[in-house]
Amino acid sequence: MTVQKGSLLYEGKAKKIYETDDPNIFLVYYKDSATAFNGEKKAEIVGKGQLNNEISSLLFEKLNEHGIPTHFVQKISSNEQLVKRVTIIPIEVVVRNIVAGSLSKRLGIAEGTEIKKPIIEFYYKNDDLGDPLINSFHIELLELADKEQLDEIKTLAFKVNDILLKHFHERNVRLVDFKLEFGLLNDGTLVVADEISPDTCRLWDKHTNEKLDKDVFRRDIGNLTDAYKEILKRLGGTVPCTE
Amino acid sequence: MTVQKGSLLYEGKAKKIYETDDPNIFLVYYKDSATAFNGEKKAEIVGKGQLNNEISSLLFEKLNEHGIPTHFVQKISSNEQLVKRVTIIPIEVVVRNIVAGSLSKRLGIAEGTEIKKPIIEFYYKNDDLGDPLINSFHIELLELADKEQLDEIKTLAFKVNDILLKHFHERNVRLVDFKLEFGLLNDGTLVVADEISPDTCRLWDKHTNEKLDKDVFRRDIGNLTDAYKEILKRLGGTVPCTE
Ligand SMILES: Nc1ncnc2c1ncn2[C@@H]1O[C@H](COP(=O)(O)OP(=O)(O)O)[C@@H](O)[C@H]1O
Ligand SMILES: Nc1ncnc2c1ncn2[C@@H]1O[C@H](COP(=O)(O)OP(=O)(O)O)[C@@H](O)[C@H]1O
Ligand SMILES: [Mg+2]
Ligand SMILES: [Mg+2]
Repeated sequence: MTVQKGSLLYEGKAKKIYETDDPNIFLVYYKDSATAFNGEKKAEIVGKGQLNNEISSLLFEKLNEHGIPTHFVQKISSNEQLVKRVTIIPIEVVVRNIVAGSLSKRLGIAEGTEIKKPIIEFYYKNDDLGDPLINSFHIELLELADKEQLDEIKTLAFKVNDILLKHFHERNVRLVDFKLEFGLLNDGTLVVADEISPDTCRLWDKHTNEKLDKDVFRRDIGNLTDAYKEILKRLGGTVPCTE
Repeated sequence: MTVQKGSLLYEGKAKKIYETDDPNIFLVYYKDSATAFNGEKKAEIVGKGQLNNEISSLLFEKLNEHGIPTHFVQKISSNEQLVKRVTIIPIEVVVRNIVAGSLSKRLGIAEGTEIKKPIIEFYYKNDDLGDPLINSFHIELLELADKEQLDEIKTLAFKVNDILLKHFHERNVRLVDFKLEFGLLNDGTLVVADEISPDTCRLWDKHTNEKLDKDVFRRDIGNLTDAYKEILKRLGGTVPCTE
């Protein structure tokens, strides 16, 4: 698929979204920016955009292969991929297999505690409000999604978890938790959108529990690109030379 | 029913729980303490305990009349009532008809906005963690209640809301929101427990929206006992002379 890059539609914290000459296709450019704590902590990290574009492309391809409806079309350059244009549902859907981060604080359970049955959480994607945790009643009040869509979101989120959990496990990585965004195509079809990368997943080495994700940046405990390169390598991708 | 007051079992922020000579009956003593913001703001307010005991008794009687299973047995003195001994489920169940307080902050919706269909929220009753909002997955992880119990809690909470909404409406009071606690009797029966009072409900005058509940204390906007006396009066209770 070849398309012409059009005008910049939206610049977020991690990506830029461009129109293309195909009205149903957007071009996503992965930036080198790292942000945490709702944008309070920021840095430019050379090579990060490319690594996330590679990793996200590989993981979306995996989901597409398994028949999960996603927005992903194809990677077209080191920092760019084509996706289907969607209307994003402003809910951050978090799936958790192991207690970490905000869940550990919220419930007073030690980080690293295994969760028997995966947990789903919904956060209202709203920077001004600090992405608050919400429940299905709040979603109805805010009219973010209807009951059918919410049920489908849950079903898809669990399916994605099953696929990614196994995929990472086989590559010696523990999928601790991850965040998904969903969108609606023109015809109303629900698809997994946005990105799936070490920015949006917690990934720990299976044997050492070494953190190989954005917590390295959030908590200043190592080199972000080294961690992301390790993930890309384990996923069978080609680690670009950034030196 | 006459029972002998036994030893103090538990002293909370608003009430003391005593054993009685009947192992299935507890005596609840309503204190004159007012607390807010997880105990950060505190005051002794003479007459408050008596008012809450009166109001809570009237409201529990109303629920009992409607066939709602509750812990309430009878009021036995100005500050005391007998209740069935339960194992409290440590979930604060909040029902909302109008946006106020933390919901207004969480979702960025103006206080006073009417909610089409009542909202239920679950908070983990845990002072150390600041009573965090939780969802049904968290409840499962913490093993606070099983799925059947949670469904029954929701059903009962909506029924209680229907009854109280109508009851207050007929008395020119808007039931903005309220908090319930549920408990299990020895045989596993789920009942509404704890208290239902202006400490645990938001109550606004139907015409002026004057606040007649603990927000008067939380926000320093009037005299708490005057507000609680007004509620007791509208509920048809006898306002005790505290001067
Ligand atoms: N297929 C898509 N169509 C339209 N918007 C998308 C698509 N995929 C992701 N987006 C949105 O693109 C925006 C840019 O991403 P990002 O930089 O992560 O932004 P943010 O700072 O809002 O998280 C986000 O709002 C995201 O929801
Ligand atoms: N029927 C009951 N049996 C046992 N405990 C009860 C019953 N009703 C209420 N309780 C509990 O009594 C305690 C005292 O009430 P309160 O002073 O409001 O305490 P808190 O500060 O924990 O909110 C609370 O933990 C409440 O859950
Ligand atoms: Mg984003
Ligand atoms: Mg209490």
